[in-house]
Amino acid sequence: MTEIKDKSIQLFLDELASKAPTPGGGSVAALMGAQGAALLAMVCNLTLGKPQYAEVEAQMQDLLEKAEMLRSTLTAMIKADVDVFDRLMASYALPKATDDEKLQRSAAIQAVLKDATDVPLACARACHEVIELSETAANLGYLGVISDAGVAVMAAYSGLKSAALNVYINTSSLKDRAFAEAKLAELEQIMAGAEAKSESIFQLVRSKL
Amino acid sequence: MTEIKDKSIQLFLDELASKAPTPGGGSVAALMGAQGAALLAMVCNLTLGKPQYAEVEAQMQDLLEKAEMLRSTLTAMIKADVDVFDRLMASYALPKATDDEKLQRSAAIQAVLKDATDVPLACARACHEVIELSETAANLGYLGVISDAGVAVMAAYSGLKSAALNVYINTSSLKDRAFAEAKLAELEQIMAGAEAKSESIFQLVRSKL
Repeated sequence: MTEIKDKSIQLFLDELASKAPTPGGGSVAALMGAQGAALLAMVCNLTLGKPQYAEVEAQMQDLLEKAEMLRSTLTAMIKADVDVFDRLMASYALPKATDDEKLQRSAAIQAVLKDATDVPLACARACHEVIELSETAANLGYLGVISDAGVAVMAAYSGLKSAALNVYINTSSLKDRAFAEAKLAELEQIMAGAEAKSESIFQLVRSKL
Repeated sequence: MTEIKDKSIQLFLDELASKAPTPGGGSVAALMGAQGAALLAMVCNLTLGKPQYAEVEAQMQDLLEKAEMLRSTLTAMIKADVDVFDRLMASYALPKATDDEKLQRSAAIQAVLKDATDVPLACARACHEVIELSETAANLGYLGVISDAGVAVMAAYSGLKSAALNVYINTSSLKDRAFAEAKLAELEQIMAGAEAKSESIFQLVRSKL
Protein backbone atom coordinates (compact mmCIF):
# COMPACT_ATOMS: atom_id res chain seq x y z
CA MET A 1 0.00 0.00 0.00
CA THR A 2 1.24 3.46 -0.87
CA GLU A 3 2.29 5.47 2.17
CA ILE A 4 0.19 8.64 2.57
CA LYS A 5 3.09 11.03 1.94
CA ASP A 6 3.59 9.38 -1.46
CA LYS A 7 -0.05 9.86 -2.45
CA SER A 8 -1.17 12.92 -4.37
CA ILE A 9 -2.66 15.84 -2.45
CA GLN A 10 -5.95 15.29 -4.29
CA LEU A 11 -6.09 11.61 -3.29
CA PHE A 12 -5.18 12.46 0.32
CA LEU A 13 -8.02 15.01 0.47
CA ASP A 14 -10.44 12.51 -1.15
CA GLU A 15 -9.54 9.84 1.42
CA LEU A 16 -9.76 12.40 4.23
CA ALA A 17 -13.29 13.38 3.14
CA SER A 18 -14.46 9.78 2.72
CA LYS A 19 -16.17 7.64 5.34
CA ALA A 20 -12.96 5.65 5.83
CA PRO A 21 -11.81 6.18 9.43
CA THR A 22 -8.24 7.02 8.34
CA PRO A 23 -6.62 9.30 7.49
CA GLY A 24 -8.21 11.76 9.93
CA GLY A 25 -7.46 14.76 12.08
CA GLY A 26 -4.23 13.32 13.49
CA SER A 27 -2.68 13.11 10.04
CA VAL A 28 -3.89 16.63 9.23
CA ALA A 29 -2.25 17.90 12.45
CA ALA A 30 1.08 16.36 11.41
CA LEU A 31 0.78 17.66 7.84
CA MET A 32 0.04 21.19 9.08
CA GLY A 33 3.15 21.05 11.24
CA ALA A 34 5.19 19.70 8.32
CA GLN A 35 3.94 22.53 6.09
CA GLY A 36 4.98 25.03 8.75
CA ALA A 37 8.46 23.49 9.00
CA ALA A 38 8.76 23.44 5.19
CA LEU A 39 7.90 27.14 5.00
CA LEU A 40 10.59 27.93 7.59
CA ALA A 41 13.09 26.03 5.46
CA MET A 42 11.95 28.07 2.45
CA VAL A 43 12.50 31.34 4.32
CA CYS A 44 16.02 30.15 5.24
CA ASN A 45 16.80 28.97 1.70
CA LEU A 46 15.76 32.35 0.29
CA THR A 47 17.70 34.29 2.94
CA LEU A 48 20.96 32.33 2.74
CA GLY A 49 23.40 33.74 0.20
CA LYS A 50 21.85 37.21 0.07
CA PRO A 51 24.67 39.74 0.73
CA GLN A 52 22.39 42.00 2.81
CA TYR A 53 21.71 39.03 5.11
CA ALA A 54 25.32 37.87 5.50
CA GLU A 55 25.24 38.76 9.21
CA VAL A 56 22.50 36.22 9.96
CA GLU A 57 23.97 33.44 7.77
CA ALA A 58 24.95 31.22 10.72
CA GLN A 59 21.59 31.62 12.44
CA MET A 60 19.73 30.87 9.19
CA GLN A 61 21.86 27.79 8.56
CA ASP A 62 21.12 26.54 12.08
CA LEU A 63 17.41 27.29 11.65
CA LEU A 64 17.36 25.50 8.28
CA GLU A 65 18.81 22.33 9.80
CA LYS A 66 16.34 22.35 12.68
CA ALA A 67 13.38 23.08 10.41
CA GLU A 68 14.32 20.27 8.04
CA MET A 69 14.65 17.80 10.91
CA LEU A 70 11.23 18.80 12.20
CA ARG A 71 9.76 18.55 8.70
CA SER A 72 11.08 15.00 8.46
CA THR A 73 9.72 14.10 11.91
CA LEU A 74 6.30 15.62 11.23
CA THR A 75 6.02 14.05 7.78
CA ALA A 76 6.61 10.63 9.36
CA MET A 77 3.84 11.40 11.87
CA ILE A 78 1.24 11.61 9.06
CA LYS A 79 1.60 7.83 8.79
CA ALA A 80 2.26 7.18 12.50
CA ASP A 81 -1.18 8.52 13.36
CA VAL A 82 -2.86 6.14 10.90
CA ASP A 83 -0.79 3.19 12.15
CA VAL A 84 -1.65 3.68 15.80
CA PHE A 85 -5.33 4.28 14.97
CA ASP A 86 -5.41 1.04 12.97
CA ARG A 87 -3.84 -0.80 15.93
CA LEU A 88 -6.42 0.70 18.26
CA MET A 89 -9.28 -0.43 16.00
CA ALA A 90 -7.72 -3.90 15.79
CA SER A 91 -7.53 -4.16 19.59
CA TYR A 92 -11.18 -3.11 19.95
CA ALA A 93 -12.05 -5.84 17.42
CA LEU A 94 -10.46 -8.60 19.53
CA PRO A 95 -12.82 -11.39 20.69
CA LYS A 96 -14.65 -10.84 23.97
CA ALA A 97 -16.73 -14.01 24.40
CA THR A 98 -14.99 -15.37 27.50
CA ASP A 99 -13.71 -13.66 30.65
CA ASP A 100 -10.17 -14.50 29.60
CA GLU A 101 -10.71 -12.95 26.16
CA LYS A 102 -12.21 -9.87 27.77
CA LEU A 103 -9.16 -9.45 29.99
CA GLN A 104 -6.77 -9.90 27.08
CA ARG A 105 -8.75 -7.49 24.90
CA SER A 106 -8.87 -4.84 27.61
CA ALA A 107 -5.12 -5.15 28.23
CA ALA A 108 -4.43 -4.83 24.50
CA ILE A 109 -6.65 -1.74 24.20
CA GLN A 110 -4.99 -0.10 27.21
CA ALA A 111 -1.51 -0.79 25.85
CA VAL A 112 -2.33 0.73 22.43
CA LEU A 113 -4.06 3.73 24.07
CA LYS A 114 -0.72 4.64 25.64
CA ASP A 115 0.92 4.69 22.20
CA ALA A 116 -2.13 6.54 20.83
CA THR A 117 -1.44 9.20 23.48
CA ASP A 118 2.29 9.38 22.82
CA VAL A 119 1.94 9.81 19.03
CA PRO A 120 -0.14 13.03 19.10
CA LEU A 121 1.84 14.29 22.12
CA ALA A 122 5.03 13.98 20.06
CA CYS A 123 3.25 15.79 17.22
CA ALA A 124 2.24 18.59 19.60
CA ARG A 125 5.84 18.86 20.81
CA ALA A 126 7.20 19.08 17.24
CA CYS A 127 4.58 21.70 16.27
CA HIS A 128 5.57 23.70 19.33
CA GLU A 129 9.19 23.66 18.18
CA VAL A 130 8.09 24.94 14.76
CA ILE A 131 6.30 27.83 16.52
CA GLU A 132 9.48 28.65 18.48
CA LEU A 133 11.62 28.58 15.32
CA SER A 134 9.13 30.78 13.47
CA GLU A 135 10.13 33.64 15.74
CA THR A 136 13.72 33.55 14.48
CA ALA A 137 12.52 33.34 10.88
CA ALA A 138 10.14 36.29 11.42
CA ASN A 139 12.88 38.33 13.11
CA LEU A 140 15.80 37.64 10.80
CA GLY A 141 14.48 36.21 7.52
CA TYR A 142 14.53 37.87 4.10
CA LEU A 143 11.76 40.48 4.02
CA GLY A 144 10.61 39.40 0.55
CA VAL A 145 9.28 36.11 1.95
CA ILE A 146 8.63 37.10 5.55
CA SER A 147 4.89 36.40 5.17
CA ASP A 148 5.82 32.71 4.85
CA ALA A 149 7.12 32.82 8.44
CA GLY A 150 3.66 34.08 9.42
CA VAL A 151 1.94 31.23 7.58
CA ALA A 152 4.41 28.80 9.18
CA VAL A 153 3.51 29.87 12.70
CA MET A 154 -0.23 29.66 12.03
CA ALA A 155 0.11 26.20 10.45
CA ALA A 156 2.15 24.95 13.40
CA TYR A 157 -0.25 26.49 15.93
CA SER A 158 -3.21 24.69 14.36
CA GLY A 159 -1.18 21.50 14.20
CA LEU A 160 -0.49 21.83 17.93
CA LYS A 161 -4.13 22.45 18.88
CA SER A 162 -5.28 19.61 16.61
CA ALA A 163 -2.79 17.14 18.05
CA ALA A 164 -3.94 18.16 21.54
CA LEU A 165 -7.47 16.98 20.75
CA ASN A 166 -6.16 13.49 20.07
CA VAL A 167 -4.24 13.47 23.35
CA TYR A 168 -7.46 14.46 25.16
CA ILE A 169 -9.48 11.67 23.47
CA ASN A 170 -7.04 8.88 24.13
CA THR A 171 -6.14 9.81 27.70
CA SER A 172 -9.85 9.92 28.52
CA SER A 173 -10.12 6.14 27.93
CA LEU A 174 -6.93 5.28 29.81
CA LYS A 175 -7.27 3.34 33.05
CA ASP A 176 -3.69 4.09 34.10
CA ARG A 177 -4.56 7.54 35.46
CA ALA A 178 -1.00 8.29 36.60
CA PHE A 179 0.20 7.82 33.01
CA ALA A 180 -2.73 9.84 31.64
CA GLU A 181 -2.25 12.73 34.08
CA ALA A 182 1.48 12.88 33.42
CA LYS A 183 0.86 13.09 29.65
CA LEU A 184 -1.84 15.73 30.10
CA ALA A 185 0.47 17.76 32.32
CA GLU A 186 3.17 17.56 29.66
CA LEU A 187 0.66 18.69 27.01
CA GLU A 188 -0.47 21.65 29.11
CA GLN A 189 3.16 22.67 29.53
CA ILE A 190 3.61 22.56 25.74
CA MET A 191 0.37 24.49 25.14
CA ALA A 192 1.06 27.15 27.80
CA GLY A 193 1.66 30.43 26.09
CA ALA A 194 1.56 28.92 22.60
CA GLU A 195 -1.47 30.96 21.56
CA ALA A 196 -0.03 34.28 22.76
CA LYS A 197 3.36 33.48 21.25
CA SER A 198 1.85 32.47 17.88
CA GLU A 199 -0.24 35.63 17.75
CA SER A 200 2.73 37.83 18.62
CA ILE A 201 4.86 36.23 15.87
CA PHE A 202 1.95 36.67 13.43
CA GLN A 203 1.68 40.36 14.38
CA LEU A 204 5.46 40.80 14.06
CA VAL A 205 5.22 39.44 10.51
CA ARG A 206 2.23 41.63 9.74
CA SER A 207 4.07 44.73 10.96
CA LYS A 208 6.81 44.02 8.41
CA LEU A 209 4.52 43.75 5.36
CA MET B 1 3.76 20.32 -15.81
CA THR B 2 1.93 18.38 -13.11
CA GLU B 3 -0.57 20.50 -11.21
CA ILE B 4 0.29 20.77 -7.50
CA LYS B 5 -2.77 18.82 -6.31
CA ASP B 6 -1.63 15.87 -8.43
CA LYS B 7 1.84 15.85 -6.89
CA SER B 8 2.63 13.70 -3.88
CA ILE B 9 2.53 15.27 -0.42
CA GLN B 10 6.25 14.58 -0.07
CA LEU B 11 7.08 16.37 -3.34
CA PHE B 12 4.82 19.29 -2.40
CA LEU B 13 6.64 19.65 0.94
CA ASP B 14 10.03 19.37 -0.79
CA GLU B 15 9.12 22.11 -3.27
CA LEU B 16 7.67 24.23 -0.46
CA ALA B 17 10.94 23.98 1.50
CA SER B 18 13.13 24.71 -1.53
CA LYS B 19 14.38 28.11 -2.64
CA ALA B 20 11.90 28.12 -5.53
CA PRO B 21 9.52 31.05 -4.96
CA THR B 22 6.43 28.86 -5.51
CA PRO B 23 4.60 27.09 -4.02
CA GLY B 24 4.54 29.27 -0.90
CA GLY B 25 2.31 30.42 1.92
CA GLY B 26 -0.66 31.15 -0.33
CA SER B 27 -0.85 27.55 -1.45
CA VAL B 28 -0.47 26.35 2.14
CA ALA B 29 -3.36 28.62 3.17
CA ALA B 30 -5.59 27.08 0.49
CA LEU B 31 -4.50 23.53 1.39
CA MET B 32 -5.22 24.11 5.08
CA GLY B 33 -8.70 25.31 4.17
CA ALA B 34 -9.19 22.30 1.88
CA GLN B 35 -8.12 19.94 4.68
CA GLY B 36 -10.64 21.59 6.98
CA ALA B 37 -13.42 21.18 4.41
CA ALA B 38 -12.42 17.55 3.80
CA LEU B 39 -12.61 16.79 7.53
CA LEU B 40 -16.11 18.30 7.69
CA ALA B 41 -17.12 16.04 4.81
CA MET B 42 -15.66 13.09 6.74
CA VAL B 43 -17.69 13.96 9.84
CA CYS B 44 -20.83 14.10 7.66
CA ASN B 45 -20.03 10.85 5.87
CA LEU B 46 -19.57 9.08 9.20
CA THR B 47 -22.74 10.58 10.68
CA LEU B 48 -25.07 9.92 7.74
CA GLY B 49 -26.83 6.57 7.92
CA LYS B 50 -26.35 6.10 11.68
CA PRO B 51 -29.79 5.37 13.18
CA GLN B 52 -29.05 7.45 16.30
CA TYR B 53 -28.38 10.46 14.04
CA ALA B 54 -31.45 10.09 11.80
CA GLU B 55 -32.84 13.38 13.11
CA VAL B 56 -29.93 15.40 11.74
CA GLU B 57 -29.75 13.56 8.39
CA ALA B 58 -31.00 16.53 6.33
CA GLN B 59 -28.64 18.99 8.05
CA MET B 60 -25.70 16.62 7.58
CA GLN B 61 -26.54 16.13 3.90
CA ASP B 62 -26.69 19.91 3.41
CA LEU B 63 -23.41 20.35 5.30
CA LEU B 64 -21.76 17.62 3.22
CA GLU B 65 -22.69 19.33 -0.05
CA LYS B 66 -21.42 22.70 1.15
CA ALA B 67 -18.21 21.23 2.56
CA GLU B 68 -17.48 19.38 -0.68
CA MET B 69 -18.06 22.53 -2.75
CA LEU B 70 -15.68 24.46 -0.50
CA ARG B 71 -13.12 21.64 -0.69
CA SER B 72 -13.24 21.84 -4.47
CA THR B 73 -12.91 25.64 -4.44
CA LEU B 74 -10.04 25.61 -1.95
CA THR B 75 -8.20 22.82 -3.75
CA ALA B 76 -8.30 24.89 -6.96
CA MET B 77 -6.85 27.83 -5.00
CA ILE B 78 -3.64 25.87 -4.28
CA LYS B 79 -2.82 26.37 -7.98
CA ALA B 80 -4.47 29.79 -8.35
CA ASP B 81 -2.02 31.25 -5.84
CA VAL B 82 0.97 29.94 -7.80
CA ASP B 83 -0.50 31.19 -11.10
CA VAL B 84 -1.07 34.74 -9.92
CA PHE B 85 2.36 34.85 -8.23
CA ASP B 86 4.01 33.73 -11.47
CA ARG B 87 2.12 36.45 -13.37
CA LEU B 88 3.25 39.02 -10.79
CA MET B 89 6.89 37.95 -11.17
CA ALA B 90 6.53 38.10 -14.98
CA SER B 91 5.16 41.64 -14.79
CA TYR B 92 8.05 42.76 -12.55
CA ALA B 93 10.44 41.25 -15.13
CA LEU B 94 9.07 43.38 -18.00
CA PRO B 95 11.61 45.74 -19.65
CA LYS B 96 11.99 49.19 -18.11
CA ALA B 97 14.62 50.85 -20.31
CA THR B 98 12.42 53.62 -21.80
CA ASP B 99 9.74 55.83 -20.24
CA ASP B 100 7.14 54.06 -22.35
CA GLU B 101 8.32 50.65 -21.14
CA LYS B 102 8.27 51.87 -17.56
CA LEU B 103 4.67 53.01 -17.92
CA GLN B 104 3.60 49.73 -19.50
CA ARG B 105 5.43 47.70 -16.86
CA SER B 106 3.89 49.66 -14.00
CA ALA B 107 0.40 49.27 -15.48
CA ALA B 108 0.93 45.53 -15.88
CA ILE B 109 2.16 45.17 -12.27
CA GLN B 110 -0.79 47.16 -10.92
CA ALA B 111 -3.29 45.07 -12.92
CA VAL B 112 -1.83 41.79 -11.63
CA LEU B 113 -1.65 43.13 -8.06
CA LYS B 114 -5.45 43.46 -8.14
CA ASP B 115 -5.78 39.78 -9.05
CA ALA B 116 -3.11 38.94 -6.47
CA THR B 117 -5.36 40.64 -3.89
CA ASP B 118 -8.55 38.95 -5.05
CA VAL B 119 -7.09 35.41 -4.98
CA PRO B 120 -6.14 35.33 -1.26
CA LEU B 121 -9.28 37.33 -0.39
CA ALA B 122 -11.38 34.58 -1.99
CA CYS B 123 -9.33 32.01 -0.03
CA ALA B 124 -9.99 33.91 3.20
CA ARG B 125 -13.72 33.99 2.39
CA ALA B 126 -13.81 30.22 1.71
CA CYS B 127 -11.86 29.45 4.92
CA HIS B 128 -14.32 31.61 6.84
CA GLU B 129 -17.18 29.54 5.44
CA VAL B 130 -15.42 26.36 6.60
CA ILE B 131 -15.20 27.87 10.11
CA GLU B 132 -18.95 28.63 10.05
CA LEU B 133 -19.79 25.09 8.88
CA SER B 134 -17.55 23.58 11.56
CA GLU B 135 -20.00 24.79 14.16
CA THR B 136 -22.80 22.63 12.73
CA ALA B 137 -20.45 19.65 12.50
CA ALA B 138 -19.31 20.17 16.11
CA ASN B 139 -22.91 20.52 17.31
CA LEU B 140 -24.57 17.71 15.39
CA GLY B 141 -21.89 15.33 14.10
CA TYR B 142 -21.25 11.75 15.22
CA LEU B 143 -19.46 11.87 18.59
CA GLY B 144 -16.98 9.18 17.55
CA VAL B 145 -15.33 11.58 15.08
CA ILE B 146 -16.20 14.91 16.66
CA SER B 147 -12.53 15.75 17.20
CA ASP B 148 -12.22 16.01 13.41
CA ALA B 149 -14.62 18.98 13.52
CA GLY B 150 -12.17 20.57 15.97
CA VAL B 151 -9.22 19.95 13.66
CA ALA B 152 -11.31 21.30 10.75
CA VAL B 153 -11.98 24.61 12.48
CA MET B 154 -8.32 25.06 13.45
CA ALA B 155 -7.13 24.27 9.90
CA ALA B 156 -9.62 26.73 8.41
CA TYR B 157 -8.72 29.41 10.97
CA SER B 158 -5.03 29.17 10.09
CA GLY B 159 -5.92 29.17 6.39
CA LEU B 160 -7.88 32.39 6.93
CA LYS B 161 -5.09 34.15 8.84
CA SER B 162 -2.50 32.98 6.30
CA ALA B 163 -4.55 34.17 3.32
CA ALA B 164 -4.97 37.54 5.09
CA LEU B 165 -1.18 38.04 5.07
CA ASN B 166 -1.18 37.81 1.28
CA VAL B 167 -3.99 40.35 1.03
CA TYR B 168 -1.97 42.71 3.24
CA ILE B 169 1.18 42.32 1.11
CA ASN B 170 -0.46 42.87 -2.23
CA THR B 171 -2.72 45.75 -1.23
CA SER B 172 0.33 47.54 0.23
CA SER B 173 1.81 47.90 -3.28
CA LEU B 174 -1.44 48.95 -4.96
CA LYS B 175 -1.66 52.52 -6.25
CA ASP B 176 -5.45 52.34 -6.61
CA ARG B 177 -6.09 53.05 -2.94
CA ALA B 178 -9.88 53.00 -3.30
CA PHE B 179 -9.64 49.40 -4.58
CA ALA B 180 -7.12 48.49 -1.86
CA GLU B 181 -9.15 50.00 0.97
CA ALA B 182 -12.34 48.30 -0.23
CA LYS B 183 -10.59 44.91 -0.26
CA LEU B 184 -9.03 45.49 3.16
CA ALA B 185 -12.43 46.47 4.55
CA GLU B 186 -13.91 43.27 3.13
CA LEU B 187 -11.09 41.27 4.71
CA GLU B 188 -11.59 42.89 8.10
CA GLN B 189 -15.28 42.04 7.88
CA ILE B 190 -14.41 38.39 7.18
CA MET B 191 -11.82 38.31 10.00
CA ALA B 192 -14.06 40.01 12.58
CA GLY B 193 -14.94 37.52 15.25
CA ALA B 194 -13.25 34.61 13.44
CA GLU B 195 -10.74 34.03 16.24
CA ALA B 196 -13.37 34.03 19.00
CA LYS B 197 -15.69 31.85 16.93
CA SER B 198 -12.94 29.34 16.09
CA GLU B 199 -11.88 29.11 19.73
CA SER B 200 -15.47 28.61 20.90
CA ILE B 201 -16.02 25.79 18.35
CA PHE B 202 -12.72 24.23 19.44
CA GLN B 203 -13.80 24.39 23.10
CA LEU B 204 -17.22 22.93 22.21
CA VAL B 205 -15.45 19.97 20.60
CA ARG B 206 -13.10 19.61 23.56
CA SER B 207 -16.04 19.55 25.97
CA LYS B 208 -17.45 16.57 24.09
CA LEU B 209 -14.29 14.41 24.22
